[in-house]
Amino acid sequence: MKTVNVGILGLGTVGGGTYKILDMNRELIEKRIGKSVKVVKVLERNLERAKSMGLTEDQVTQNPDDILKNPEIDIVVESLGGIEPSTSFMLTAMEHGKGVVTPNKAAVAAGFAKLQETAKANHVEFRFEASVGGGIPALTAIQEALAGNDFSEVMGILNGTTNYILTKMTDLGLDYNDVLKDAQEKGFAEADPTADVEGIDVANKLSILMALAFDHYVPPTEIPTVGISKITMDDIEAAREKNCKIKLIARAKRDGDQITYSVKPMEIDNAHPLAGVSNEFNAIYVTGNAVDELMFYGKGAGALPTGSAIVGDILAIAKTL
Amino acid sequence: MKTVNVGILGLGTVGGGTYKILDMNRELIEKRIGKSVKVVKVLERNLERAKSMGLTEDQVTQNPDDILKNPEIDIVVESLGGIEPSTSFMLTAMEHGKGVVTPNKAAVAAGFAKLQETAKANHVEFRFEASVGGGIPALTAIQEALAGNDFSEVMGILNGTTNYILTKMTDLGLDYNDVLKDAQEKGFAEADPTADVEGIDVANKLSILMALAFDHYVPPTEIPTVGISKITMDDIEAAREKNCKIKLIARAKRDGDQITYSVKPMEIDNAHPLAGVSNEFNAIYVTGNAVDELMFYGKGAGALPTGSAIVGDILAIAKTL
Repeated sequence: MKTVNVGILGLGTVGGGTYKILDMNRELIEKRIGKSVKVVKVLERNLERAKSMGLTEDQVTQNPDDILKNPEIDIVVESLGGIEPSTSFMLTAMEHGKGVVTPNKAAVAAGFAKLQETAKANHVEFRFEASVGGGIPALTAIQEALAGNDFSEVMGILNGTTNYILTKMTDLGLDYNDVLKDAQEKGFAEADPTADVEGIDVANKLSILMALAFDHYVPPTEIPTVGISKITMDDIEAAREKNCKIKLIARAKRDGDQITYSVKPMEIDNAHPLAGVSNEFNAIYVTGNAVDELMFYGKGAGALPTGSAIVGDILAIAKTL
Repeated sequence: MKTVNVGILGLGTVGGGTYKILDMNRELIEKRIGKSVKVVKVLERNLERAKSMGLTEDQVTQNPDDILKNPEIDIVVESLGGIEPSTSFMLTAMEHGKGVVTPNKAAVAAGFAKLQETAKANHVEFRFEASVGGGIPALTAIQEALAGNDFSEVMGILNGTTNYILTKMTDLGLDYNDVLKDAQEKGFAEADPTADVEGIDVANKLSILMALAFDHYVPPTEIPTVGISKITMDDIEAAREKNCKIKLIARAKRDGDQITYSVKPMEIDNAHPLAGVSNEFNAIYVTGNAVDELMFYGKGAGALPTGSAIVGDILAIAKTL
């Protein structure tokens, strides 16, 4: 059986989840694709963490080039997060003939054109299903199974932290600050929650969705973005009286050549499928001129759901090797 | 630009929808895949219907071999329906080196192994995304983006006619027979509704879902199947008192080597994402050991939604040619 060798940059939550899935579902994966997928090297400072996951000392490096320029490695998973050095690492890997898979929305949204062009120029695959909606396979669907559609709208609940906060405010009648504090204590929100609650994370994801659905790239910094930190119980109640729920919505709408886009809290009618998306769940809702309305619903974060999308991308590339 | 030639067997609702999508989104499709996809021949008795859609007389034939054995045709869409002669036509097309795409759940479920083996033996692709859930791209997702998952459960609302009837019974308090009559008058239900209301259509779809998710084929005739024709307003009310809705549910659950499966009306808790799937909409809900819970929601029938899935399959094959 042919072996496809994978290198992982960063064995944090998502990198670790990816490693775990490839390990726990090894036999199934071999049966499905007829190839063995093996993690041969990881970039990770915390040697003990790597060892506790089953890696041997010689599989762990602190030198990125041991992965990026390693002729034995076919596919590089970039799960470090942040724009740099992640983007440079991905470009280097591509220039060395490796397929690249990443969940890194900030890097994909910031460097969309450069990353795509570099992949094309080097005849390698660049996949980033996990960057939007975690485990939800919407990006692949938009590019492949739905490729016969002219899309007029993409909408989504793309951030689990803010959806959790809004759900608790709505269901329990609690104030924003109280729910945020609770979420931080439970690990659902970061100590510095700015990127989540101010919609920055969601703007990155909308930038990627628009680039794929409309073939129209807008830098995330140019997307009008309002977060949820100013939402009050009065807002929630006013929405409830209109039979609506407040959700942080990423939305892009195309009308001819005109595309409008925003990230902002919106009142969503309870009859709309997005209104039923609660707690940490995410959903992506698209309208195409053939398929009409379609919604994908699932876990937008977490080690295994996000790892599921990364492994899906790894296997898609592995099949072509 | 390379041209990929398609033949369509049957220009009814779904075959016609497929033709229409390829026509209306032609430029977009060419831009996306870098190839031109052209319908060169259709098998259709009703010449006037074909002409009204823009086909010329020489593009229409009443002899299946003009498509199945035509060396110019790369991909055959089988949209005749029924098990035979559809299955024989698909096998002949594969034996003549053509990729085959079909929305025909009865034929796929009945001949699953033979169709798959024949495709493999002839090194051609056989795709049937449209056979389950119409436009919802769940089958491709299960086989590709979610291929890193060990699935433990698949559940679905897979028939629009029965979901429409149950929704109207629930929302308007109407009797089964009254809603069925209304649905028939509106064209949402067939004159002979047996295959829909008795769950036979759904059993075909569950057979296909199980074969893909669990790699375990069960003939649809061996799936315990109960339809909705005996559901009364008392049942609906009893469910409502438990904060549930009655839905016709296809369900397969795997526990180790044990797989249990059924098609039957079930009480679904209003908090479950499937409870919010109303009217003619369909949904497919899967649980994998990496992705956890995931739901796909959309239109399970109709010319354009079903055509969307067929076109997605055509383009997936076209990319490999």
